[in-house]
Amino acid sequence: MTINILFAAKAERWDGYEQPLNEALRKALPGQDFTLATDLPPEEVDYIVYAPNSDLQDFTPYTRAKAVLNLWAGVEAITGNETLKIPLARMVDFGLTHGMVEWCTGHVLRHHLGMDTDILRKDTKWEPRTPPLARERSVAVLGIGALGQAVAEALVGLGFDVTGWSRSEKQIEGVRCLHGDEGLTEALKRAEIAVLLMPDTPATQNVLNEKTLAQMPKGAFIINPGRGPLIDDDALLAALDSGQIAHATLDVFRVEPLPEDHPYWAHPRVTVTPHIAAATRNDTASEVIAENIRRSEAGEPLLHLVDRDRGY
Amino acid sequence: MTINILFAAKAERWDGYEQPLNEALRKALPGQDFTLATDLPPEEVDYIVYAPNSDLQDFTPYTRAKAVLNLWAGVEAITGNETLKIPLARMVDFGLTHGMVEWCTGHVLRHHLGMDTDILRKDTKWEPRTPPLARERSVAVLGIGALGQAVAEALVGLGFDVTGWSRSEKQIEGVRCLHGDEGLTEALKRAEIAVLLMPDTPATQNVLNEKTLAQMPKGAFIINPGRGPLIDDDALLAALDSGQIAHATLDVFRVEPLPEDHPYWAHPRVTVTPHIAAATRNDTASEVIAENIRRSEAGEPLLHLVDRDRGY
Repeated sequence: MTINILFAAKAERWDGYEQPLNEALRKALPGQDFTLATDLPPEEVDYIVYAPNSDLQDFTPYTRAKAVLNLWAGVEAITGNETLKIPLARMVDFGLTHGMVEWCTGHVLRHHLGMDTDILRKDTKWEPRTPPLARERSVAVLGIGALGQAVAEALVGLGFDVTGWSRSEKQIEGVRCLHGDEGLTEALKRAEIAVLLMPDTPATQNVLNEKTLAQMPKGAFIINPGRGPLIDDDALLAALDSGQIAHATLDVFRVEPLPEDHPYWAHPRVTVTPHIAAATRNDTASEVIAENIRRSEAGEPLLHLVDRDRGY
Repeated sequence: MTINILFAAKAERWDGYEQPLNEALRKALPGQDFTLATDLPPEEVDYIVYAPNSDLQDFTPYTRAKAVLNLWAGVEAITGNETLKIPLARMVDFGLTHGMVEWCTGHVLRHHLGMDTDILRKDTKWEPRTPPLARERSVAVLGIGALGQAVAEALVGLGFDVTGWSRSEKQIEGVRCLHGDEGLTEALKRAEIAVLLMPDTPATQNVLNEKTLAQMPKGAFIINPGRGPLIDDDALLAALDSGQIAHATLDVFRVEPLPEDHPYWAHPRVTVTPHIAAATRNDTASEVIAENIRRSEAGEPLLHLVDRDRGY
C-alpha cells in the first residue's frame, strides 16, 4: 500500500522541502511506496506534514490520517484546534536545537562581554575594561524543555553560573534547577542575563511584566528567542527606560514581521533579530519527519508527541 | 629565613596586587616569613614578580634571585634581555585563560551568526536569514599553546569544525591539528574564521600578510587577540577594502593605545577592542605566582617555565 503524505504548508516551504523530504522518506522507508504532495484527496491522506499557518485548519475530512507532524517547535496555534483529534508531533531537530544553542550562547556572550561598546564605538577612546568571568555571571534560562536544556548545558560548558526554571521539577547536571512560582521569583533574582525559552501557553503569557521585571537585578539583560507573548511589551519598554533592564535582544514578537512603527525598532537598548534564533533546517527536519512516519508504520511511539492539555 | 619578593611593575599594578598577592603567599607558604615590596636592595631579592614594561631592565644586580615570575602571558619584551640568566615563568592563570576563551568564543559566534547586522541596523527591515550551523563553519585557531588549545576546545564544544595550527606537531581531541609551513597554508585555506593566538616571535611577525591573506576563503573573518605584530596592517587594510576579508576584530596592536589617527578606528569592517581579550585577574594570577614560589622553595619544577630559545 502506498503511504499518502500531505504537505500542508505555504508554497515557499514546499520549494525547500520537496527534495530533502523525499530523500529522507526514501531512506527511512526503503522499498515502501509513498506519495508526497501538496494536494491529495483528504480521505486518502495517511500523514499530514504541517505548518500552523497553513490553509488547512479543518482536520475533519482527514478521516484516515494517523498523525500531524509539525514543521517547527511552536504548536500554540494548533493545540486549541478542536477538529484535530489525531496525535500531533512537534519538531525537535538537531539543526533547530543547535541553531538555538548557537544564537543564545552568542548573545549571552555578547552581553556578558559588553561587545556592543566596541561594535558601536564611534570615537577613538581606548578604555580597557575587565568583565567578570563567566563563573561570576549568573544566567537564568526560563523554560528548560528540549531547547532550554540544550542552551543551559551549553552555557554550563562555557563556565556560566546557570539557573534553569521550569513549571514542573527537572534536573540538569551543572544547572541550578528551580520550579513553580516560588522558583520563578528566585530564578529572576539571579538573572543578570535571562534567556526566555518557555512555550507560549495561557500560563506563560506576560510572564515578564512590571512585577517580575522589578525582581531581576538592576541592569539585567533579557534575551527572548522563545515567544513574543512571554513579554508585556509596555512593561519592558518602561523597564528599559528606567535602567532596570540594560538591554533586550528580541527575536520573537506578538506580531511578525515586527510593525515598522513599533518602538522596539528604534530603541537604543533593544536589538531586534527577525525570528532567526532557531530556523528549521530543511534537511535535518526532514529526517525527523521521516523517522516519525517510519515509527508510526512500525507501531512505535512518535518522537516529540504533544500533550495538548499542557499545550506543548 | 625571610623570603624577599620584589614587585617590579608599574605602581598602578601594585595597587591591585598588594592585597591578593600577600593573601595568596600566606596561603601557599604557611608559617613562612616573607617580605613583598616594590623596593628592596637588589642583592637581597629572592624572587622578582615582573611586568615587562617595568623600570627594572637590568637584572645583573639581582645576584641571589632564583626566578622571574611574569605577571602576564606575553614575554617577548624580556626573552631577549641578556642580563636575565635565571628561570623565567609566564603567567598562565585560570582567569586569563578563561577570559580569553570567553572573548574568542563570543566573537567567533558574533561573526558566525552575523550579529552585527542586527546590532547596527538603522532601518526596520525584517529580513530573516539562516546562518550555517557551527558544524558547517570552519574555524582555524592559529597558535595552539595553552591559550589556543583552550579556545579550540571551547569551539569544538560549541560544535564548530575546528582546525588548529602550531609550529611543531600537536594533538588535541576533536581538533584537526596541522603544523609547519605546509600546515599553515592548509589551515588558512580552511579559515572562514581565523583566531590568531601565536606568540610574538621573529618567526610569527607578519604571519598574516598579502600572500597568506589571499590564501584564506573570500569573505573570511579575522580575530586577533594574540599580538599586534602577527598582522601586516597595510596588507589587512587592503584585503578588507577588496572584500577578501569581510571583517577584522582586533584586540592587540603594534602600538597601544592604538593611535587616534590609525585607520583601524574608523574602518567600517574593523572592530577595535582595547586589549581586553585576556585581562589578568589579580586574584587568580596571585595564586599562580605564590604557587611557583612555593614550588621553587620546595625544589619542584616551576609552572609555565619559558624556553628562551624558542621565545615562549
